[in-house]
Amino acid sequence: MRAAVFNAPGEIDVEERPRPEIEAPTDAIVRVTHTAICGSDLWFYRGDSDRDAGSPVGHEPMGIVEAVGDDVTSVEPGDRVLAPFAISCGECEFCRKGLHTSCENGDSWGGDNGGGQGEYVRSTHADGTLVRVPDRHADDEDTLRSLLPLTDVMGTGHHAAVSAGVEVGSTVAVIGDGAVGLCGVLAARRLGAERIIAVGHHEDRLELAEEFGATETVSERGEAAVERIRELTYGGPNHVMECVGAASAMNTAIDAVRPGGTIGYVGVPYGVEDEGLDVFGMFGQNVTLAGGVAPVRAYAEELMADVLQGTLDPAPIFTETVGLDDVAEGYRMMDEREAIKVLVKPHGDA
Amino acid sequence: MRAAVFNAPGEIDVEERPRPEIEAPTDAIVRVTHTAICGSDLWFYRGDSDRDAGSPVGHEPMGIVEAVGDDVTSVEPGDRVLAPFAISCGECEFCRKGLHTSCENGDSWGGDNGGGQGEYVRSTHADGTLVRVPDRHADDEDTLRSLLPLTDVMGTGHHAAVSAGVEVGSTVAVIGDGAVGLCGVLAARRLGAERIIAVGHHEDRLELAEEFGATETVSERGEAAVERIRELTYGGPNHVMECVGAASAMNTAIDAVRPGGTIGYVGVPYGVEDEGLDVFGMFGQNVTLAGGVAPVRAYAEELMADVLQGTLDPAPIFTETVGLDDVAEGYRMMDEREAIKVLVKPHGDA
Repeated sequence: MRAAVFNAPGEIDVEERPRPEIEAPTDAIVRVTHTAICGSDLWFYRGDSDRDAGSPVGHEPMGIVEAVGDDVTSVEPGDRVLAPFAISCGECEFCRKGLHTSCENGDSWGGDNGGGQGEYVRSTHADGTLVRVPDRHADDEDTLRSLLPLTDVMGTGHHAAVSAGVEVGSTVAVIGDGAVGLCGVLAARRLGAERIIAVGHHEDRLELAEEFGATETVSERGEAAVERIRELTYGGPNHVMECVGAASAMNTAIDAVRPGGTIGYVGVPYGVEDEGLDVFGMFGQNVTLAGGVAPVRAYAEELMADVLQGTLDPAPIFTETVGLDDVAEGYRMMDEREAIKVLVKPHGDA
Repeated sequence: MRAAVFNAPGEIDVEERPRPEIEAPTDAIVRVTHTAICGSDLWFYRGDSDRDAGSPVGHEPMGIVEAVGDDVTSVEPGDRVLAPFAISCGECEFCRKGLHTSCENGDSWGGDNGGGQGEYVRSTHADGTLVRVPDRHADDEDTLRSLLPLTDVMGTGHHAAVSAGVEVGSTVAVIGDGAVGLCGVLAARRLGAERIIAVGHHEDRLELAEEFGATETVSERGEAAVERIRELTYGGPNHVMECVGAASAMNTAIDAVRPGGTIGYVGVPYGVEDEGLDVFGMFGQNVTLAGGVAPVRAYAEELMADVLQGTLDPAPIFTETVGLDDVAEGYRMMDEREAIKVLVKPHGDA
């Protein structure tokens, strides 16, 4: 099969790889029809994190089940499925409590199971991992585009909102106007937030944030952004969603949040070793820091229900669509911020 | 009046100072009968934090009201009162939500209002700050010794437990066997924790922790302590109370807590600039960090009710009692860990 692989920073190539096969009775093989490039893929693309040369990339697969192992009961060949960025068993203590990212039997995409950005993947723990799209929606291209973000960014934005304690009537600031921040705006609106202040630096993305439900936007940086957020909220919002994944954004969140408030964070805070986290600021004002890597599997069913009934639609974050041959161009567009998020169709439109 | 003042690291002297007087209609003058030396006083005593030479010290006053300003309604001369380490107005948004340490009109002891370790203090915002001890208990020495910790350490231990989400049936690890950790054990038991694992390095203090309700103790250090806590709890407790106030203890808490669990912290994490906080560990396992400087004023009434009915007694943390003349010796005993906490009687037994 053909799959996108990482060969060096800035170098993503499409190479021939062995097509994955059933190896364990809990496996399923999925023919990937839709997948995406993630902001977190830019870490290794930019050389900010290490990754083995030659490793398949991608972690947001959606497709058609081709084959299942003998023990798989929840899906069968022909089913349309999507898979979260984390593989989880669905049966351990942590899966049962909705913390699938701490699964005792967990795994990730990108090894010999195939990366998400390739023609096929092998899902281990298929019953715990794959989410079946109901048949009546399984071939509607628009619906599939709206469901694809549930593999990662929509669930991650939702986790930020849940972790920040957003509920009906909340005032919340969403730091970051990337795909996760935009999905965070959708999530906050869905949970009933009354005021949603989107904070970012890109006019087009802040406009999309407003379409998604942001009631106000802040485009200042650093200290000025903090001042503006505090001014708009008469002293800071009780809820802040940190959707960037950088120490500077985390410290903006700490500075902006109201005393006693909660920050929900969902991105690895890169730069925290150098810049440090303002723990003393958190301590003095009793700021709670909640969140972490998002257990998106836990949220798939409830978010899918809303997408299917038409009340939630993150599809506009996909500003570009490419085939597998153009996946490197997709990375470039994400890296240079020409695209918010790129949808990849490994088999073209087939 | 005579008051303990800080003159240099290791040098606490008793000096003559102007006796504080009513300056504003919301002030009250308190003749301090009981006060204490705090673990946080050791920061400047050891030179770990800066403090102006010549400044009065102490922040845990209890005593008899001598005079009140015209606007004070909640206490009158002759009342026995205690005061938290933070002065708060009782009327602003944050006082009303129980976050008195973020009071918009807040103040602290140790300036011209007199330090807590002196013969008299002037409480600004007396109505918001002072807690009246009911008359029938106001002169019982044993009761007063049991109430004095509500000025700081008992409320702080309680804040750690509340912040860590301790409730009926919880399993919790309490990191630290100082006065706050020991009060944290009392607080966890009071909130209904089923298993309380006290973690410390001093045999006598861990024995007191057991008297206070700890069901198990761990005296290992570092990695070995983490392993023992995780072993005892089959993978880590869902609740950890960090009662040391040091980066190393915070990282022990992060390593030990169960994925998805909550750390309640109440001490400034000294050393965090050098050692760093394991934010990546928190991120990967969705560990919540809650707490901060404890709003002990918020907890005074409920904790006092339990002390007065005899179901809560933190008095055993006072292993030494000194008069004002021996306050320097009290600091020495705390510094050299000869005493868990030292009670100071500025007027002797009068």
